[in-house]
Amino acid sequence: MTTNDSVQVSVLGLGAMGNVLAAALVEAGHATTVWNRSAGKADNLVAQGAQAAATAGDAVRASRLVIACLLDHASVHEVLDPLADELVGRTLINVTTTSPEQSREMAAWAADAGVAYLDGGIMAVPAMIGQPGASILYSGSAAVFDQYKPLLDLWGTSTYFGKDAGLASLYDLALLAGMYVMFAGFMHGAAMVAPAGITAGEFAAMAAPWQTAMTGAFQGFAAVIDGGDYTVEGQQSLEFSNLSDLLAASSDQGISTEVVAMVQRLIQRQIDAGHGEEGFARIFESIKQPG
Amino acid sequence: MTTNDSVQVSVLGLGAMGNVLAAALVEAGHATTVWNRSAGKADNLVAQGAQAAATAGDAVRASRLVIACLLDHASVHEVLDPLADELVGRTLINVTTTSPEQSREMAAWAADAGVAYLDGGIMAVPAMIGQPGASILYSGSAAVFDQYKPLLDLWGTSTYFGKDAGLASLYDLALLAGMYVMFAGFMHGAAMVAPAGITAGEFAAMAAPWQTAMTGAFQGFAAVIDGGDYTVEGQQSLEFSNLSDLLAASSDQGISTEVVAMVQRLIQRQIDAGHGEEGFARIFESIKQPG
Repeated sequence: MTTNDSVQVSVLGLGAMGNVLAAALVEAGHATTVWNRSAGKADNLVAQGAQAAATAGDAVRASRLVIACLLDHASVHEVLDPLADELVGRTLINVTTTSPEQSREMAAWAADAGVAYLDGGIMAVPAMIGQPGASILYSGSAAVFDQYKPLLDLWGTSTYFGKDAGLASLYDLALLAGMYVMFAGFMHGAAMVAPAGITAGEFAAMAAPWQTAMTGAFQGFAAVIDGGDYTVEGQQSLEFSNLSDLLAASSDQGISTEVVAMVQRLIQRQIDAGHGEEGFARIFESIKQPG
Repeated sequence: MTTNDSVQVSVLGLGAMGNVLAAALVEAGHATTVWNRSAGKADNLVAQGAQAAATAGDAVRASRLVIACLLDHASVHEVLDPLADELVGRTLINVTTTSPEQSREMAAWAADAGVAYLDGGIMAVPAMIGQPGASILYSGSAAVFDQYKPLLDLWGTSTYFGKDAGLASLYDLALLAGMYVMFAGFMHGAAMVAPAGITAGEFAAMAAPWQTAMTGAFQGFAAVIDGGDYTVEGQQSLEFSNLSDLLAASSDQGISTEVVAMVQRLIQRQIDAGHGEEGFARIFESIKQPG
């Protein structure tokens, strides 16, 4: 397809995310059929020009391209297993949040059923869809990705990782891990300064640009990790990264130390193994090989 | 002072950080005297136009403004205790990394000695000094901060937090906590995708803009925390933030789960206390009140 082609596409699942995905397709002029298990979720889309299907089967039969955005992996099987025969020769793009193993299982199911399969992981909240900053990760069929990229780009930046259908989910989870852990670090900082009368809002105003600047260190750590030599010059050593002052100050503020203690354990395991003078990036090894 | 005034200033401590701080002063045309316990550290600065003092006492006597950038709190006392009489009526700006309690102790020592005192926390590595992104936090004497702000601004963005001398250190440690925890989260993500053949560099290229975008959530969390009502609409609930898929995928990759398990514990304590339907920002309470 090119950017101007109108595609017949069906969207299964109209929760908060499925609804905005479908809306973006309708708005771009694609002939969009929508279906949701419970009624009423399609009303806004029909008002915009979508066709509402009475059953998932009707929705599948309406389009060669089927998008699934359901609650979870089990929901995908519940909805699609009875429709395997209808799906033969069609294309399924599954953006339901699943684990890498579940994505691989779905890809195998699709291969058995004669369905072209692309798995997607959405790195955005619904409000971000179609806006700058929305990123959607894909893996599975390269042919499907290449064919429908102009349509997928309506939702956000589309990146393809490879034919292993589990890669997008794996990447998705790895990025989410970084996000949740960063959030916990932010909350720890906010809790540290709160007893001094500093509001979380005041702290956030400092912390957001600070953390943004510090993401600049990722590539340096990565170069050391990929190079496999943690002794290269110019790194902050593990010994210098001792967090006992931070832990003591947290205790002095009367708050939990567990967030920072997690990092200290990763550091300490490397120091205990005799690597104290090597670079901080070596905590990667503490994570790679469980203690 | 105004931006164009030349100030007589002495810098005690010429490690990697003290050296670049002094160099910025020399370059801006300030009459800079420098001293370091061990020899040779002043050579580059003398070549640029600084005066090298033979003793810390000579350095203190040379200037009304004294900057201390020493190894730690104990070093500050070792160097300055014998010079208390010389320091009377002078101004001390201490950017040595110390804990909030140590900063407060030093402020009390300075008050006893008749020395105007400002405490600083440097949120930058030496290479960042004088560059965009370098941030230096101050607390203690507002008069000292106001008087020397044009000079302090040579090093980075200068922010004053209040007369409690411990505030800058506390803020410094709180921001560092966020940084170290974010780094651990990045390393976890890199370790998750590594078994799939994705390099840390490839992951960093995705993770840095992703984490940057996600710092946009800090102000929303802060508004909820400061408002004190974790039930306000539009938040992702703690139950929805269940990280078991992430933990399972990490285990499947053969890596440690401890980084993410830390966040899951913070979430679970709030769910166990009956707050599962409230917003994710409530993990702040898990940190605020140790279990």
